[in-house]
Amino acid sequence: MKLILASGSPRRKELLSRAGFLLDIHVSDCKEESACTNPGLLVEELSHEKAVAVWKELEDQIADTVVLGADTVVSIFGNVLGKPSDEEDAYRKLRFLSGKTHEVYTGVTLVKRVNEQMQCHTFHECTKVHIAQLSEEEIRAYIATKDPMDKAGAYGIQGIFGKFVSGIEGDYNNVVGLPVARVYAELKKLGWLED
Amino acid sequence: MKLILASGSPRRKELLSRAGFLLDIHVSDCKEESACTNPGLLVEELSHEKAVAVWKELEDQIADTVVLGADTVVSIFGNVLGKPSDEEDAYRKLRFLSGKTHEVYTGVTLVKRVNEQMQCHTFHECTKVHIAQLSEEEIRAYIATKDPMDKAGAYGIQGIFGKFVSGIEGDYNNVVGLPVARVYAELKKLGWLED
Repeated sequence: MKLILASGSPRRKELLSRAGFLLDIHVSDCKEESACTNPGLLVEELSHEKAVAVWKELEDQIADTVVLGADTVVSIFGNVLGKPSDEEDAYRKLRFLSGKTHEVYTGVTLVKRVNEQMQCHTFHECTKVHIAQLSEEEIRAYIATKDPMDKAGAYGIQGIFGKFVSGIEGDYNNVVGLPVARVYAELKKLGWLED
Repeated sequence: MKLILASGSPRRKELLSRAGFLLDIHVSDCKEESACTNPGLLVEELSHEKAVAVWKELEDQIADTVVLGADTVVSIFGNVLGKPSDEEDAYRKLRFLSGKTHEVYTGVTLVKRVNEQMQCHTFHECTKVHIAQLSEEEIRAYIATKDPMDKAGAYGIQGIFGKFVSGIEGDYNNVVGLPVARVYAELKKLGWLED
């Protein structure tokens, strides 16, 4: 099945390709800003914004292809953590996550033309992640790899940081950036899953 | 840090490399048989057998290098599922797992020479895995990819089958084949973590 992925994230691209989807990638330059402080609603709103922006740009060129937008944040004790602004910010975020459990929220919006109308379907998944106690040396060594800099919460679960993740509750791929199983199940439920 | 991996599994090799370990791979041809029916004890026993066999072979050539052995099985309602023997067996196993929650057990043994003596350290991790309801077509299409054939429980969580895994509880890498975070934590605790 073919999707248009409204995200430049190489990790989302890889997850969907691995799950057997064919992809076109199209990124719009919407602001990615929101006043929302509820992490679930925030990622739903931003995923909706991204998906609709791309759908509107491509509306005349695509027939029934589904556009997928997604957004991921880390939430801990009521704080929403996005991507780090610099290395010191990455250090602060990682020290905050050390030895604690946090939540990762990914919002997803699927958009498709149905009966000549734009139809949107939005949801989010939440996964709990347990991080081991990190020493200052471990945090500094991890930041030196540059891996944290483009990732919400300043870490990537799938790389070298994996050795500090003692466990999760929920969908692992949701932490990587996209709840692929939920996306597949929702497409199936909507009847939008075709070859 | 350098390890000798007593396993031919390309997935364990990748997990450890990604976590920053340097590896030598050495596989012994021990039987991998056990009368044990408790999945946690079974994987501990088999990981111990593999690690000790390699350590004994290499004893004279290695100084303080840690040998790591591991074994993974799937357990559901008291049944232990190993690798499928053929495609029909893979079908039976996948149909059994469909729409249910099962456990994945990986046992790990670390062996090192300490004060001229062989010292072993064995443990296991268990991760719960929730599988979506699978249709006959979905199972057949997955078997056609050949992905199930070399994997305990007849699936690999990290590939195309990921879209059927709705969630887990515990360490994701443990399902792939090695609880890397626990291995790292145990090496640290033992004081065996060095450059």
